[in-house]
Amino acid sequence: MACSSSEGFWRLGLLAAILLRDGELMLAVVDATEVAGFSLPLPYRLFFLLIEPIATLLGAYYAFFNQPTYLNLTHAASAPSPVPLGTSIALSQLANLYFAFALTEALVLRSTSDLRVWKTVLFCLLVADFGHLYTVSVLGPQIYWNVFEWNAIDWGNIGYLYFAASMRKFTGFQVNGADTWLEFHKNEFQPKPFGDYDVDIKIECCGVCGSDLHTISGGWGEQNFPLAVGHEIVGTAIRVGPKVTLIKPGQRVGVGAQSYSCLDCRQCKNDNETYCQKQLDTYGAVWPDTGIVSQGGYSSHVRTHEHWVFPIPDALPSTVAAPMLCAGLTAYSPLVRNGCGPGKKVGIVGLGGIGHLGVLFAKALGAEVWAISRTHAKEEDARKLGADGFLATADKDWNKEHVMTFDLIINTANSFEGFDLDAYLSLLDVHGRWVSVGLPEGDGIKIRNQTFLGNGCFIGSSHLGSRKETLAMLQLAADKGIKTWVEEVPINEKNLATIMQRLHKNDVKYRFCLTNYQDQFGA
Amino acid sequence: MACSSSEGFWRLGLLAAILLRDGELMLAVVDATEVAGFSLPLPYRLFFLLIEPIATLLGAYYAFFNQPTYLNLTHAASAPSPVPLGTSIALSQLANLYFAFALTEALVLRSTSDLRVWKTVLFCLLVADFGHLYTVSVLGPQIYWNVFEWNAIDWGNIGYLYFAASMRKFTGFQVNGADTWLEFHKNEFQPKPFGDYDVDIKIECCGVCGSDLHTISGGWGEQNFPLAVGHEIVGTAIRVGPKVTLIKPGQRVGVGAQSYSCLDCRQCKNDNETYCQKQLDTYGAVWPDTGIVSQGGYSSHVRTHEHWVFPIPDALPSTVAAPMLCAGLTAYSPLVRNGCGPGKKVGIVGLGGIGHLGVLFAKALGAEVWAISRTHAKEEDARKLGADGFLATADKDWNKEHVMTFDLIINTANSFEGFDLDAYLSLLDVHGRWVSVGLPEGDGIKIRNQTFLGNGCFIGSSHLGSRKETLAMLQLAADKGIKTWVEEVPINEKNLATIMQRLHKNDVKYRFCLTNYQDQFGA
Repeated sequence: MACSSSEGFWRLGLLAAILLRDGELMLAVVDATEVAGFSLPLPYRLFFLLIEPIATLLGAYYAFFNQPTYLNLTHAASAPSPVPLGTSIALSQLANLYFAFALTEALVLRSTSDLRVWKTVLFCLLVADFGHLYTVSVLGPQIYWNVFEWNAIDWGNIGYLYFAASMRKFTGFQVNGADTWLEFHKNEFQPKPFGDYDVDIKIECCGVCGSDLHTISGGWGEQNFPLAVGHEIVGTAIRVGPKVTLIKPGQRVGVGAQSYSCLDCRQCKNDNETYCQKQLDTYGAVWPDTGIVSQGGYSSHVRTHEHWVFPIPDALPSTVAAPMLCAGLTAYSPLVRNGCGPGKKVGIVGLGGIGHLGVLFAKALGAEVWAISRTHAKEEDARKLGADGFLATADKDWNKEHVMTFDLIINTANSFEGFDLDAYLSLLDVHGRWVSVGLPEGDGIKIRNQTFLGNGCFIGSSHLGSRKETLAMLQLAADKGIKTWVEEVPINEKNLATIMQRLHKNDVKYRFCLTNYQDQFGA
Repeated sequence: MACSSSEGFWRLGLLAAILLRDGELMLAVVDATEVAGFSLPLPYRLFFLLIEPIATLLGAYYAFFNQPTYLNLTHAASAPSPVPLGTSIALSQLANLYFAFALTEALVLRSTSDLRVWKTVLFCLLVADFGHLYTVSVLGPQIYWNVFEWNAIDWGNIGYLYFAASMRKFTGFQVNGADTWLEFHKNEFQPKPFGDYDVDIKIECCGVCGSDLHTISGGWGEQNFPLAVGHEIVGTAIRVGPKVTLIKPGQRVGVGAQSYSCLDCRQCKNDNETYCQKQLDTYGAVWPDTGIVSQGGYSSHVRTHEHWVFPIPDALPSTVAAPMLCAGLTAYSPLVRNGCGPGKKVGIVGLGGIGHLGVLFAKALGAEVWAISRTHAKEEDARKLGADGFLATADKDWNKEHVMTFDLIINTANSFEGFDLDAYLSLLDVHGRWVSVGLPEGDGIKIRNQTFLGNGCFIGSSHLGSRKETLAMLQLAADKGIKTWVEEVPINEKNLATIMQRLHKNDVKYRFCLTNYQDQFGA
């Protein structure tokens, strides 16, 4: 667990607090054995002196070093841990034990908005008070230095707990502005408050999307800097909110380019959550309630609503799966939504990150697939990816033989330079569709209604895809052994600058994937 | 029948030819009664002297003054008229009668490419020769001045026939060029050769489409002048080709903006003939085989392949039906092809010729219909047309309350001036469609892929509609009593100039329809 440089401090602080608290208590109990000639029963002493410290330390160990296991043990059913009930004395000591868990939990959950923290606190205060009072009534007040002092410490812990719960930070490689878009700075940042449905993910790798480049270089206009981009994230769920049911702690999961929608509107209820009017991007979006700017996957962790967290099938290596979460879905959703399948002739314009996944998925869906590129340079790659045909627009009359034969064309081109839309659209059959999924910079392209007349074709864009589509896409990739063509690059300031420059020149086949996160953010 | 100023000549010429020919024959027959003491039987004389001239003149009368009836009588089954057979003498005289019909037929059909003309000629030559020879063998050569001379006249008729068949011309109001687009000249023009599937239509009225204005004023670029525009034609089928099965002579029929497609390609076979790559427009198109430029409905007649000739239901007045054939179909086809119906919310942008029919048809199809206009000026009209709601884009935040609620918007706007496409598209639900059916002049409008991202909407155009859709539309209009809002204007040079200027200013509610064709082109 290494989500920020302050983590070490918190880790030590928590251990000290537990040892201090339980040590103090242990001393008090040892003392109490001699108070008023009353001898504590052996099971109690054994429990208090052996089992409780071991359980506490074991809990603390898992909490800090293996949070998935901790969460699994304590929140397998996403509910507060059951508190064992026994004698009043055992209760009071269990309350202490439980309080220790509450502390660790506050640090792990680090969310003042997580009800579990406060329920735990209240429950153990109640049990502790009951236990303390009963213990005092049986053993006499000598068992504690001062029952009021002692209770005050209990209550005082609430502040500590609140502090611990509010202080979690993540670390990421941020850019400070479009004019210094090649300078990445490793900064801490405050994630949005942890919500009931949130999942914290320790990132393992992240694909590098064209959007990242457009965003940091200012091509898409003003942004909320400083900003860590990246929205093709794969990692491990290390913490899940109390109402999370879709993700289990410890699961390998992914996050794409979208991280929020209302899940309540007509769009959301029709598997069109990607078109929800309240949708928020994984990075650069302002969370309306807090004003916090969402930060992407060039970071130690990401905190995401479970709806946008996707279990990764075992068959898919992380770096193969990561680019699918934006580039893959961007190609996959318009393919399935526009009828790509057996008997259909589908074109993929542009053989880049999205395009090469478009060819792979269109083929996997059973269509006749044609890659369309400027020159023949990528023809061999296209064939290897499974394309049935290849068209180079630099060829004379390149479109003539295919006029009105395509059912669907996915345009992944990232620029409108020298783009002859009419020639492309002439390829479409009646009411065929041209779906642009690249988002070129600049003012756009001029169209006339006449452009669409010859075949009554439609043009449009497509935004990502639904959760259902994401899961189906990953499963299809797993079932058919689809492999993203990835160039893996360890994440660090220098490499980030290099790959952004290369991406700017389209010098990648066909997707960078940032790896070796543990070198930058700990294991 | 008054398709050209040379018609009078042909009419007189033909009557003269028939009277000369039959008069001569009558004299010969009267003479023959006394030749060689042989008396012709009374029935023959009665037939020849009474019935044949009456039949011939009756045929000629119908041929000239009531061609639909003539064609009905002689070509009801689209086959050559049956030739009654009798005695050899009756045969020979029937042959003469039939030849007279052949002559009139040649003039009516006026097509050297119409096999019926030549079959009739050959048949009657054969019968005539047989009859002549038999008559001569019975009555002696005295019955004719000279049997060879006589036969030579028969054969000589072929030239006359060919001449008659090749000389049909139509008359129309043509514009000579874009720089003189308000000057209409009443000219004769040569229609394309009459084909087996062609229908000649005597025009009764013609709607005035925005296309007419764009075409003659040069807004759509170079045109084939001189040109008579007009493609919302209603008239009477006065002649049908030998293979015509869809149209009967005498039927009231309409012709829209398309007049040809191959009927053989995939598009044509899937009721997408309007997207056939070989489609030709009703006016301004060059017929590939002859180079003749198609001429539109500001004319006496139009010659059209039966596939693009549509019977008009009795319930629809001609001037109500005419504008439906381009404007109506242009709105109707994208409505039905994009799911307009109960439960759908449909917008119609622009309340003009197409727009007002769009509101009428969308409503008739059962959708919730909103008219969208620049100001509130046409709101009352929109409500009268049946619109459920009205949006004026000049209002502040006019689109806010309707964002992502429309399933389909048909854009009939004829200009991109001040056109905020993004505001319109924001109205569309996920994957909703924006279909532009107006064809504004100019370079077009700039779009960015981002424009479509919010709802994954599509934009496109639509070109007219299929024959099936046309017939369904006309039937729907008849069934639901849909009434185009028409301003009727008698066709002449001055009125044409006036309405073109008014159309240029959108000063029409909501469609001009040219009428009183008989005043310009005869009954």
